[in-house]
Amino acid sequence: MSDEPVALVGISNAIVDVLCHVEPAFIKDLDAPPGSMTLIDRDQAIALYDKMGPSVESAGGSVANTVACFASLGGSAGYIGRVADDQLGRIFDHDMTSIGVETRLPPETRDAPTARCHVLITPDGERTMQTYLGACVEIASTDITSNTCGDARIVLLEGYVWDTPEGPQAMQQAVSIAKQANHQVALSLSDSFCVERHHAAFHALASGDADIIIGNEAEMTALFGVQDFAAASAAAQANGGLFVMTRSEKGSVLVRGDEVVNQAADRIEKVVDSTGAGDAYVAGFLYAYCRGDSLQAAARLGTQCAALAIQQVGARPKPADLASLG
Amino acid sequence: MSDEPVALVGISNAIVDVLCHVEPAFIKDLDAPPGSMTLIDRDQAIALYDKMGPSVESAGGSVANTVACFASLGGSAGYIGRVADDQLGRIFDHDMTSIGVETRLPPETRDAPTARCHVLITPDGERTMQTYLGACVEIASTDITSNTCGDARIVLLEGYVWDTPEGPQAMQQAVSIAKQANHQVALSLSDSFCVERHHAAFHALASGDADIIIGNEAEMTALFGVQDFAAASAAAQANGGLFVMTRSEKGSVLVRGDEVVNQAADRIEKVVDSTGAGDAYVAGFLYAYCRGDSLQAAARLGTQCAALAIQQVGARPKPADLASLG
Repeated sequence: MSDEPVALVGISNAIVDVLCHVEPAFIKDLDAPPGSMTLIDRDQAIALYDKMGPSVESAGGSVANTVACFASLGGSAGYIGRVADDQLGRIFDHDMTSIGVETRLPPETRDAPTARCHVLITPDGERTMQTYLGACVEIASTDITSNTCGDARIVLLEGYVWDTPEGPQAMQQAVSIAKQANHQVALSLSDSFCVERHHAAFHALASGDADIIIGNEAEMTALFGVQDFAAASAAAQANGGLFVMTRSEKGSVLVRGDEVVNQAADRIEKVVDSTGAGDAYVAGFLYAYCRGDSLQAAARLGTQCAALAIQQVGARPKPADLASLG
Repeated sequence: MSDEPVALVGISNAIVDVLCHVEPAFIKDLDAPPGSMTLIDRDQAIALYDKMGPSVESAGGSVANTVACFASLGGSAGYIGRVADDQLGRIFDHDMTSIGVETRLPPETRDAPTARCHVLITPDGERTMQTYLGACVEIASTDITSNTCGDARIVLLEGYVWDTPEGPQAMQQAVSIAKQANHQVALSLSDSFCVERHHAAFHALASGDADIIIGNEAEMTALFGVQDFAAASAAAQANGGLFVMTRSEKGSVLVRGDEVVNQAADRIEKVVDSTGAGDAYVAGFLYAYCRGDSLQAAARLGTQCAALAIQQVGARPKPADLASLG
């Protein structure tokens, strides 16, 4: 870690995406809800890959995407996540460091390979994800120190990390360090099934130490145990924290107590690939928020970043395109 | 190898593409002709990757792309090329076998990693390639036997293989096996600089044992040592063999002695990525040619495959899209 403080440190599962086009029957055979993220083990990953067709590989992971976009916008960023010391791990690390992100954990040299998320894309554009966590499961409380995340003005926690054995303790450690330093804690809810798996922990954080809570409609309704967006929005207002709620083509809503900001989505002529749109939105939002923009301006920059992500293949817009927005 | 004969076996450098968007200044600093393919060594590859931004990885290689598309169209195909026993090698192998290609060499377990081609894409869409051959250089004459390529009705040789130490002998061995079995030999010229590097060998093959010679305008003019396409076309006619000449947006021309077939390119509303268009064309052409279609019909199928390749990112069109053409 350099002596310079950074604006953002993300803590998340470090994952390489393996993107493959499949027919709907393929998803049905998996018995996975279309659009969901399911965790699979090593043997399941091998069996799944054997059944899959040709793929394209790229560094991914939700909060890792956000951190990468944040850096491309011009923000100073650090990253905490475990890859293995293998080719995919080196690719993941390269794609972070090459845009200026400080990766703060060395590669893991134990048995498990770098994590991969098999992203199965059906002809309607829906993505069903099967994730083998590999080296991600090695993240431990001892990885989270004042050296690795103490300098971040915002520590961004990924909900998915609660799926790893020591993830919950590690995240608690990150919260403690941030609070001691009077820094902010942001929580990305990851996906609605993840919210259900770790509801008590997320709800406690949202009601307590988290300053910013980020999620889409399904994640917010799961968090508050309500039926629709209006109810989730009301619950968020009652909570009092800053809630960043993305709604795909319906735009986004930010609430902070009585303050409510509505931001329309950009009109996109052709949606090429919606992968990573939410992650890019969060990057734009946090970048503007860190430099002191209004919530409305921050929502606007998030929207522009999401629009870039949607009009290209893959989760992370070109650094040069983001740089022109930052 | 199964006992069933296959229609096509391709012999080529087995390469994983590492695709990255760069500014024109990046290419200038490399001192590489824009649009060229340059061979680099391991240290150069490491230094280059350190300078590059985030990338996307996918199985590539010119003739390997052709073999993959041929199989997706419904053709029976085998493949001979060396990958290492590493993650990128397993990805390459998976992307072949998952669409039914029989890969006929085991992964190499010596020191060199799987080859990678750094594809540097400038904003005008031009691709400059820097290739580290890695495990490809291990290909040897002993790899080319009646078991690995004796069953192929067409053996497709990639010009780039002449860049490897034992490549020229290995390719000569493949020619001998094909000729003994009364099978056909096709030669893909790879690129005009490659033609210049191995001009004597390519010219001898084109004038002798090769039944089908495949290349674009620049490659054909380099082969015949002439200034323009009209002269190359005349030289091809005088040669008497079957020449498949691709001309990008100008379509393609096939000549076999007096027989000349002109095929217009499809009108493409938006060129997304021209990577692999020529490789896909060759797959469509060979697939139709193998099943006994006319040259015109074969040129037509080649054109349709190229159009698919152009309208998506990456070198290999979706197997499902190709299957609907085959």
